[in-house]
Amino acid sequence: MTDDDLLARLLDGDHRALARAITTIENRAPGHRDLVSGLYDHTGNAEVIGITGSPGAGKSTLVDKVAKTYRDRGLTVGIIGIDPSSPFTGGAVLGDRIRMASNIGDMDVFFRSMSARGSLGGVSIATADAVKALDAFGKDRIIVETVGAGQNEVDIIKTADTVTVLLQPGSGDDVQMLKAGILEIADVFVVNKADLDGANRTVQELSEMIGLRGSAGDESTARHAGHHAGEEAVALQRTDADAEDESGWTPPIIETVATRGEGVEEFVDALADHRAHLESTGEIEAKRRARYAEEIRTLLREDTADLLAEEIDARGGIDDLAAAVAAGETDPYEIADDLLDPIAEYARRGRDTDA
Amino acid sequence: MTDDDLLARLLDGDHRALARAITTIENRAPGHRDLVSGLYDHTGNAEVIGITGSPGAGKSTLVDKVAKTYRDRGLTVGIIGIDPSSPFTGGAVLGDRIRMASNIGDMDVFFRSMSARGSLGGVSIATADAVKALDAFGKDRIIVETVGAGQNEVDIIKTADTVTVLLQPGSGDDVQMLKAGILEIADVFVVNKADLDGANRTVQELSEMIGLRGSAGDESTARHAGHHAGEEAVALQRTDADAEDESGWTPPIIETVATRGEGVEEFVDALADHRAHLESTGEIEAKRRARYAEEIRTLLREDTADLLAEEIDARGGIDDLAAAVAAGETDPYEIADDLLDPIAEYARRGRDTDA
Repeated sequence: MTDDDLLARLLDGDHRALARAITTIENRAPGHRDLVSGLYDHTGNAEVIGITGSPGAGKSTLVDKVAKTYRDRGLTVGIIGIDPSSPFTGGAVLGDRIRMASNIGDMDVFFRSMSARGSLGGVSIATADAVKALDAFGKDRIIVETVGAGQNEVDIIKTADTVTVLLQPGSGDDVQMLKAGILEIADVFVVNKADLDGANRTVQELSEMIGLRGSAGDESTARHAGHHAGEEAVALQRTDADAEDESGWTPPIIETVATRGEGVEEFVDALADHRAHLESTGEIEAKRRARYAEEIRTLLREDTADLLAEEIDARGGIDDLAAAVAAGETDPYEIADDLLDPIAEYARRGRDTDA
Repeated sequence: MTDDDLLARLLDGDHRALARAITTIENRAPGHRDLVSGLYDHTGNAEVIGITGSPGAGKSTLVDKVAKTYRDRGLTVGIIGIDPSSPFTGGAVLGDRIRMASNIGDMDVFFRSMSARGSLGGVSIATADAVKALDAFGKDRIIVETVGAGQNEVDIIKTADTVTVLLQPGSGDDVQMLKAGILEIADVFVVNKADLDGANRTVQELSEMIGLRGSAGDESTARHAGHHAGEEAVALQRTDADAEDESGWTPPIIETVATRGEGVEEFVDALADHRAHLESTGEIEAKRRARYAEEIRTLLREDTADLLAEEIDARGGIDDLAAAVAAGETDPYEIADDLLDPIAEYARRGRDTDA
């Protein structure tokens, strides 16, 4: 199958071509650049949702239920699960997902796991490109799922229009995740396992952290997700100005018990609310441009890293250069000047000629 | 003062020149490249110690006591404290340090705080360069102090020969920090506030995490830091092969109560042990070369980012490029090819000519 065939068949709705395209993208295999270039013209129709949370918070269960809800509403779904790179957090994720695929048993929920291994933008750009593939394919909703919290994960989750942070009651990990910068980029919070002791406290702490101060109920519009017998969970959507982002959006806190499907409809509605907000404020366009800018920057960095690696090899390799520094023969600044000055000079001349 | 004067005066032992040099380095101000190039010839004598830990673990108190211990042993000390960039973790650090400086009241403990704000290698290279300044100045011991845990912090702390991770009893943050990759790079662990409830459990958990399994006491050489009345804390230096790194070093766990100075001598001895290990195995040279390699790579990335920024500006700026993608006129891969192909071609021709 040639690259053009692959693109044509993907656009024609062939799931095997879609899978192969994502493999090409993930491996940065020959032809991936033209492939992704070709995808771009067909993108922009999907709603992209990012979901992050600590291991064990119930992320994959929630994602499965969300996918089912979308299917029930007649929408097609693509899911990209980022496999954690750390040996501490691996394990159950993939097992769950295989089960899910067989439960749902229809290809309109297309699940694909990608490795988080890799460095310096490589993962986030591959994820962004895989999202393009699902979008061009025609999936209505695309879910990108990562394990918090690290710069990699923050970068990946930024490929989404709507970012969800999933927490579970009484987890110290979650606080750490929020500290790592996830708090700032969350559009919707979910407190899963809301039937556990401490769920109310987690909601309360979260409310305080995102600037939702004051007692539950007042000045708020509440959404309800009856989550266990005789009690109703209150999903808060307050109107405090403190909690709003610059576009006027206040992240709601949704309580769910994903294993029983409780709160999932409310969560899906909250995602739709955020989408509507993005569209009514024009924020969706600003987000899209910011994302393209980031994609350009990341791609340039990645391409330049390849170019630098060639230059370093042409000078005997990084180990030889480091040994020369250790021997006092040169220093990193001399090496950088020697390597980049001619290139910079050439680029400057080119710009002067253009001008 | 010209740049040459600055270098000469720094090498001559002028603390004000040292402070100004670090400012020049931190701001990447004009002349910083030649300055650091000039420093390189005079480096290699200092022992560089990195200390990281969660906010509130007692890092600055411990560092102060360590500095005092070095001074008592007739050694000069330079300290670089990386100010956390997150609003969640700021605060007390600087207040403490001002107090410390006045307590010690001698310039042979030179403390300098640097901002962790900045991106993509900028912080870690500035830190590495500031270490060079302290080294060339003639400081015997250099301590780099960061707040864990993030990729930035991991990168920064790698500028040290010996990496210490400081934990406090019963902190969920610490587990998260370990997950973030600090565990792998720790040469010495310190459990501070060892007089608190739960200290033994933290030591135990830590032992298990670093592969020190089995009951306390057997197959181990123990170091003792009497840390509260009637009890002796056991600092474990086991010999289990599991816990050793590839060079044969097993990270010891030292218990301290930094506020009372307890365990500080033992900690300083452990740092000396690790240094002796690095030297006897030749590991110190390998570490130094690996660090130079990393410095070269980081510097090249930073310099290239500047070059790319110029190229992007020459094409109307990143916002215009992103808008062109949003309008469907181009895509990031076309932009990257357009921008980098001529440069890559030029670089390749240069290499062919050399060959």
